[in-house]
Amino acid sequence: MDKPIPTLSGEVALIEALAWEFGPPPPDVILGIGDDCAALALNRGRYLLWTLDTLTEGVHFDLSYMSLAQLGWKALAVNVSDIAAMGGEPRYALLSLGWPPARNWAGALEVAAGLKQAAREFGVAVIGGDTISSPSGVVITLTVAGWVPAKEMVRRSGARTGDLIYVTGVLGEAAAGLEILRNRVELAPALTQPLFQAHLAPRPQHRAGRLLARRGLATAMIDLSDGVATDLFHICRASRVGARLEARRVPVSPLVQAAAPWFHRDPLDLALKGGEDYQLLFTSPPEKQAALFRAFTRAGLPLPLLLGEITAGDRVQLVTERGEEDISGAGFDHFRLNSPANYLSS
Amino acid sequence: MDKPIPTLSGEVALIEALAWEFGPPPPDVILGIGDDCAALALNRGRYLLWTLDTLTEGVHFDLSYMSLAQLGWKALAVNVSDIAAMGGEPRYALLSLGWPPARNWAGALEVAAGLKQAAREFGVAVIGGDTISSPSGVVITLTVAGWVPAKEMVRRSGARTGDLIYVTGVLGEAAAGLEILRNRVELAPALTQPLFQAHLAPRPQHRAGRLLARRGLATAMIDLSDGVATDLFHICRASRVGARLEARRVPVSPLVQAAAPWFHRDPLDLALKGGEDYQLLFTSPPEKQAALFRAFTRAGLPLPLLLGEITAGDRVQLVTERGEEDISGAGFDHFRLNSPANYLSS
Repeated sequence: MDKPIPTLSGEVALIEALAWEFGPPPPDVILGIGDDCAALALNRGRYLLWTLDTLTEGVHFDLSYMSLAQLGWKALAVNVSDIAAMGGEPRYALLSLGWPPARNWAGALEVAAGLKQAAREFGVAVIGGDTISSPSGVVITLTVAGWVPAKEMVRRSGARTGDLIYVTGVLGEAAAGLEILRNRVELAPALTQPLFQAHLAPRPQHRAGRLLARRGLATAMIDLSDGVATDLFHICRASRVGARLEARRVPVSPLVQAAAPWFHRDPLDLALKGGEDYQLLFTSPPEKQAALFRAFTRAGLPLPLLLGEITAGDRVQLVTERGEEDISGAGFDHFRLNSPANYLSS
Repeated sequence: MDKPIPTLSGEVALIEALAWEFGPPPPDVILGIGDDCAALALNRGRYLLWTLDTLTEGVHFDLSYMSLAQLGWKALAVNVSDIAAMGGEPRYALLSLGWPPARNWAGALEVAAGLKQAAREFGVAVIGGDTISSPSGVVITLTVAGWVPAKEMVRRSGARTGDLIYVTGVLGEAAAGLEILRNRVELAPALTQPLFQAHLAPRPQHRAGRLLARRGLATAMIDLSDGVATDLFHICRASRVGARLEARRVPVSPLVQAAAPWFHRDPLDLALKGGEDYQLLFTSPPEKQAALFRAFTRAGLPLPLLLGEITAGDRVQLVTERGEEDISGAGFDHFRLNSPANYLSS
């Protein structure tokens, strides 16, 4: 295997270069670098899912409009979303909290309070951690572990040509909320509050993820952290397939439709490239559609929304009235955010 | 239980306040907040040990004298040291790497190369991770998991009055190395190189930790990250005992003895309060001393060094020619480093 040359978007390229550096994992590692979680065969019949995510002040959040309790909630939520994307049940978490010396230490307890609220909601026990001084801003890392029955685990790599592509909820709200907060757009609270909530306190779809896994209804799954265009491309690359999305079917949130003109953004663009929706994007064979809708109805969960299908190609194509557009990987890239030059592609 | 009021040194107080916030862990969590690792009963007969540590540029390291490869090594080494302190065997790691946009991305591969070298040395597989943009400097978090047979796990809480206190190697080298690097003291390379190594590329004592656990030779154990005065006090608090150290027995490194006068520091002070030695500090009953020395000799490991004994008190007392001095918790505190005001005690 030749060493890959980083020409993709930053994060993908760097992770692939690191995976190359570390080489293949030992046999008890079922999944290493390249999915939402690592998976370990520690226990007969089930896998331990394990993930790690960092949120950095000035990159991922801004404490001028996010409360410390919301930060604690979100730090756990984004990790729980990774466990959900494999069909797993989150169970345990460790916290590393970097705290600026100039900031009142009591705020660390506000972070803990929000984290505790999320932990109770998602059934997670926070069982350890580390507190450190951070020179420039608050940095919070959580690592979460959980379980999935071995036969139920859903990878990114199982999508097959002809599978339908679904998402567990409407898109674009978190990105729209962020735009409004950043640009201090003045809009009616009835419109902005749910959008702010979507960005500040996202709700991972762990119940939907478990349901899909338990019933064997998803062939591939990922959580939407970077936006459909990037995250669906991850599924395509892992599954060696392509995808066709129909613009008119993309479930853009009605709130985003209403708000986007006020800050001059295309609602479809926010829905496909905005990132941080933390909905689950999954593929499922067409013959399972009736079973899928029945399962979600019985579980009292909102029905999944269909937005396209898996093709024999290797790109993510968006079909609009003007023709087809390649949107592969055109999503939110953590390395691009807040940095005008994408140093990874230079 | 009343909410503890943070009056101790910063890190201890904050961790205790967070532990209070999160409450008691579920029954499959054998150890939660308050030891070197969390321990989970996932598997018959053995516990999964799990730890998380972050190194932050400008707080824990300075890239003007530390190479990126050394940073990768050290980030894994400090986590392996936590696993070693419970008597465990490290196995798996996840990496979160925060990278400043202004820094050449290829440096991330240098970090990975150092990490890989440490991973091979310590038998750890790096199986996943996350790369993020970091506004002010490099931030590296590793989470490491490993195994310990349930009956062999060594906690901080098992020290008994009359136990002897040992350390796996000489003390003060990492702190002396840091002083010389920071103050740009000019000394002979034969003296400075091993001291620099001790700070820049510490060697966790995982073989000694496993040996002590396997043979049931340690009643309590901790790794020396914050210095004897603080870390021994952790053992005392967890075990509800005191400790008496004899100044003349403290195994100050001869290199530290030789170098310390050149930068006007007391070698004993560096040895007891300097931090980052990553030796193991453990307690063991006097009647096991012969077995202890035999086991280390047979394993080809340097003999543990005796520095004091556990008492019925609740403080760490240092016996010098001038009398007794209470040094409880007088070690390195991450919250104090690089910050003149300890905001946690104000």
